[in-house]
Amino acid sequence: MKKLTSQIVSDVVRPRPDDSFKGTFGKVTLVGGNENFGGAIIMATMAAVYSGAGLVTTCTAPLNAGPLHSQVPEAMFADMHDDHKVAQLVSAATTVVVGPGLGDNEQSTHTLHVVFDNISDQQTVVIDGSAITIMARDHLSLPAGKVVFTPHQMEWQRLSGIKIADQEPKVNQAKVKELGATVVLKSHRTEIYDGNNIYQLPIGTPAQAVGGMGDTLAGMVGGFTAQFHDQGVKAVLAAVYAHSDVAEQIAARQYIVLPHQISRSLPAYMKRMSSIDRQHQIGFNN
Amino acid sequence: MKKLTSQIVSDVVRPRPDDSFKGTFGKVTLVGGNENFGGAIIMATMAAVYSGAGLVTTCTAPLNAGPLHSQVPEAMFADMHDDHKVAQLVSAATTVVVGPGLGDNEQSTHTLHVVFDNISDQQTVVIDGSAITIMARDHLSLPAGKVVFTPHQMEWQRLSGIKIADQEPKVNQAKVKELGATVVLKSHRTEIYDGNNIYQLPIGTPAQAVGGMGDTLAGMVGGFTAQFHDQGVKAVLAAVYAHSDVAEQIAARQYIVLPHQISRSLPAYMKRMSSIDRQHQIGFNN
Amino acid sequence: MKKLTSQIVSDVVRPRPDDSFKGTFGKVTLVGGNENFGGAIIMATMAAVYSGAGLVTTCTAPLNAGPLHSQVPEAMFADMHDDHKVAQLVSAATTVVVGPGLGDNEQSTHTLHVVFDNISDQQTVVIDGSAITIMARDHLSLPAGKVVFTPHQMEWQRLSGIKIADQEPKVNQAKVKELGATVVLKSHRTEIYDGNNIYQLPIGTPAQAVGGMGDTLAGMVGGFTAQFHDQGVKAVLAAVYAHSDVAEQIAARQYIVLPHQISRSLPAYMKRMSSIDRQHQIGFNN
Amino acid sequence: MKKLTSQIVSDVVRPRPDDSFKGTFGKVTLVGGNENFGGAIIMATMAAVYSGAGLVTTCTAPLNAGPLHSQVPEAMFADMHDDHKVAQLVSAATTVVVGPGLGDNEQSTHTLHVVFDNISDQQTVVIDGSAITIMARDHLSLPAGKVVFTPHQMEWQRLSGIKIADQEPKVNQAKVKELGATVVLKSHRTEIYDGNNIYQLPIGTPAQAVGGMGDTLAGMVGGFTAQFHDQGVKAVLAAVYAHSDVAEQIAARQYIVLPHQISRSLPAYMKRMSSIDRQHQIGFNN
Repeated sequence: MKKLTSQIVSDVVRPRPDDSFKGTFGKVTLVGGNENFGGAIIMATMAAVYSGAGLVTTCTAPLNAGPLHSQVPEAMFADMHDDHKVAQLVSAATTVVVGPGLGDNEQSTHTLHVVFDNISDQQTVVIDGSAITIMARDHLSLPAGKVVFTPHQMEWQRLSGIKIADQEPKVNQAKVKELGATVVLKSHRTEIYDGNNIYQLPIGTPAQAVGGMGDTLAGMVGGFTAQFHDQGVKAVLAAVYAHSDVAEQIAARQYIVLPHQISRSLPAYMKRMSSIDRQHQIGFNN
Repeated sequence: MKKLTSQIVSDVVRPRPDDSFKGTFGKVTLVGGNENFGGAIIMATMAAVYSGAGLVTTCTAPLNAGPLHSQVPEAMFADMHDDHKVAQLVSAATTVVVGPGLGDNEQSTHTLHVVFDNISDQQTVVIDGSAITIMARDHLSLPAGKVVFTPHQMEWQRLSGIKIADQEPKVNQAKVKELGATVVLKSHRTEIYDGNNIYQLPIGTPAQAVGGMGDTLAGMVGGFTAQFHDQGVKAVLAAVYAHSDVAEQIAARQYIVLPHQISRSLPAYMKRMSSIDRQHQIGFNN
Repeated sequence: MKKLTSQIVSDVVRPRPDDSFKGTFGKVTLVGGNENFGGAIIMATMAAVYSGAGLVTTCTAPLNAGPLHSQVPEAMFADMHDDHKVAQLVSAATTVVVGPGLGDNEQSTHTLHVVFDNISDQQTVVIDGSAITIMARDHLSLPAGKVVFTPHQMEWQRLSGIKIADQEPKVNQAKVKELGATVVLKSHRTEIYDGNNIYQLPIGTPAQAVGGMGDTLAGMVGGFTAQFHDQGVKAVLAAVYAHSDVAEQIAARQYIVLPHQISRSLPAYMKRMSSIDRQHQIGFNN
Repeated sequence: MKKLTSQIVSDVVRPRPDDSFKGTFGKVTLVGGNENFGGAIIMATMAAVYSGAGLVTTCTAPLNAGPLHSQVPEAMFADMHDDHKVAQLVSAATTVVVGPGLGDNEQSTHTLHVVFDNISDQQTVVIDGSAITIMARDHLSLPAGKVVFTPHQMEWQRLSGIKIADQEPKVNQAKVKELGATVVLKSHRTEIYDGNNIYQLPIGTPAQAVGGMGDTLAGMVGGFTAQFHDQGVKAVLAAVYAHSDVAEQIAARQYIVLPHQISRSLPAYMKRMSSIDRQHQIGFNN
């Protein structure tokens, strides 16, 4: 098991090329937020926007359009119940994030099918929250594209059939290989499996133990994989590390970390990480 | 009568255990906010979230869902008029807060019955504002669970039958024993009765004399009792002390304290209080 | 003509008595904000809340309830088109503010009548914006209570019949005496007439020349007259002075002053002004 | 080609005359923001308000009224689908901004016609985003007034017929002369054409490559041309320079710049630029 260090973030988050435009940094389409869980998709959207994705569109229940634009006018809105629009936006995305606040009923199951049916090979799809639960219960096959799951331990049990007590690295990795996906297994010490390697996140704080923390992580994985799409699993690793690194910095002066505070801190954090001299760092580690 | 000191906060607000997750810190379900008083339940929700409850759901009028998520995307929303959902969310909670902005009519009375009918022994229920008025007028019996009332003096008169002029500690305590509840009697010098002891809050500032201050307190009592549920009445005492302690700190530079400012200050305040060396403090007091 | 100094603010904004509660600081009911001009009543509400009124309720179009609570959860909401509710809230207020964003059509004229019919002698009513225009056009008589008008020069022309070019102090004062009201005549150098004296505001900055500045002033006059209701015209003078004093301080570092920034600066400004040693100040002026 | 320097901003943004009022600084009417792209018109509105326009009204889909007022209560709202109101507000404006988030369908095409039909010679009209696409596709003639286009390279190709690869200064300028408009051609190094001169913006940062950046620019051009309407093309140049100058300052500490952060930074930035001693600067350049 490889322990992640801040090196992964400064490896991935490099200074932007001068002649870039917003298309360079990918499109993220998020799908989630039913009438009850609008906050979840708003937090995920904020994370995608503040981590620097070029264009972000959020498919959610119409009730959530107002607070979405109050929080992040930078994102676009689409009605999650308009299958045609969802299909179009999913097809056009670099990364799709599905699940935050999606809920678990007939409607959300239907929407999940629309998402899966419209993903193609070159795309990344981040599957979070109730989308994992629905997949497990209905035995859905994985969609095309590069799949990233972000389950907590109970969701992983549902998806993998491995009980929490038995979720040992070897067992998990075997299942991950079978799935052909990347899995961010969230817990007190989060682990990331990609079929080849297992990475452990050695940081994180109990101040993160509040609702919405996972939605923010899913949105960040969306923002990083869209923006750094040529970096493969390293983009996922960097997002996971950055999420807890920022949280630890906030927790130095706060008892709890509000998820939206992580997103708002990203532009300054990523600037600092991108400015670190790579050569020097490597030298230092030798 | 025991005078509270900041010791109560640093006793209750201890560093979080490393291997905790959001379930460790309880679930708060808030019920209130009719079409006119949406701000009250939004402020109570903000207080519950910012004081560190693990999961927070707010049952309110649909009109309030938008501004709720604009202010606190970390909270979930449910329609207060959907009895089935309210029942479900009340049953699942560690602490229920009912009353902020609930209003006093047939609909709110009905909702209060739904709440009371679904509370069980292990739960804490914080009863505030118009919920107290309805209880008093309709002579409702106390719900199951650990009951905390947060009346101001007129509401206490309605509930206890004791006129404001006669609200002396002994008389109050006798009534509190009869009720079998904890009572936070809000006034210029707030007192807390739990049937055994009487505690006085020796701090507080006239800068707190603005609308919404009580809603914020109710939300904090909700957040503290859910999160520190093994601390009994001490969790209530700590919330009450913290509320005025933060307010005094803000009032050092402001003529009035906006209730939402107290909530936003809680994560930093609680960090400072949790970092105080207990041994040292006790030494100092000897 | 008396020139106002910052003395008027420190005379009026005194430290709050220790044993006060929110009732001590009055109730403000604001009426305005049709479907197009919701921002106006939101800014007026923010000013009333941040200047320290005890309880604030805003009667406005239902469309505005969401953004009102997103900006100021501390305020309560009522539907401006519900005559019964408006009547009730107007009757219960210490000060009524009518006009910001009210608009000028049949509906707003009707609402203005409802407001005027429910004001009684002990109340203050601040009449602003289109409420002045409607009064002038329909030749409405003044409502009961202490009336404060806050016209700009064109609105004053409509109300008084005095053309802008002829708006000389003597002519204005004669008309003000006839009306039996207080008039805050807004211009590059605002003047306040109360029938006995004329006061001039010697401060103010062109950075204030943006939409919403007058709505904020109306809300502040509402907040000050409710809170300092025993101070008569001095409460109006203090609000007018404070409004431009804060604006000048912000304009020291900004090209324009956003109206909502004035409101948000009030709690700190009023604290500073309330802390000035009166005796010392008077000594200094001798 | 003339390279712009910060001089253009301090030339245009002069200290405001003391006896000004909000009418002095012009009226901006913005038209855009369909049900999906509400954020675009909100960001454009924020830019117009924060750059100091006297009065700002936003014609947009009703769904966007709430978040508009949550973000900028200083702006007024009108229903974009109410032709009569749009016509009235367009006629009354100093500058009209049309296009941000307008979308491209029958409804938006109709609205664009309403806008164009009501513009007269003395007005400035800023045409952005999908408004450019619609014009190009439907071969609409230019409206009356001083027209400013703000296309990116693909939109310019659609409008001018010049392929991106062929967009050389001479070719562009010939087409601009034919159009009789000012064109802000957005790219890695933005160029401004006014038929007589070509200006190049030598600043800008890849941190600006995020959605909403162009909407903010369009709103700033609106705010500057309304406020500094006697400055002709210099007002456009100053807006374009200020937009990237502020962005560079934010990018010194952030990996990406959120568009709304540029708007919020304008009042302080413009203050600094307006305070620069002109004589000194010119001396320094000699």
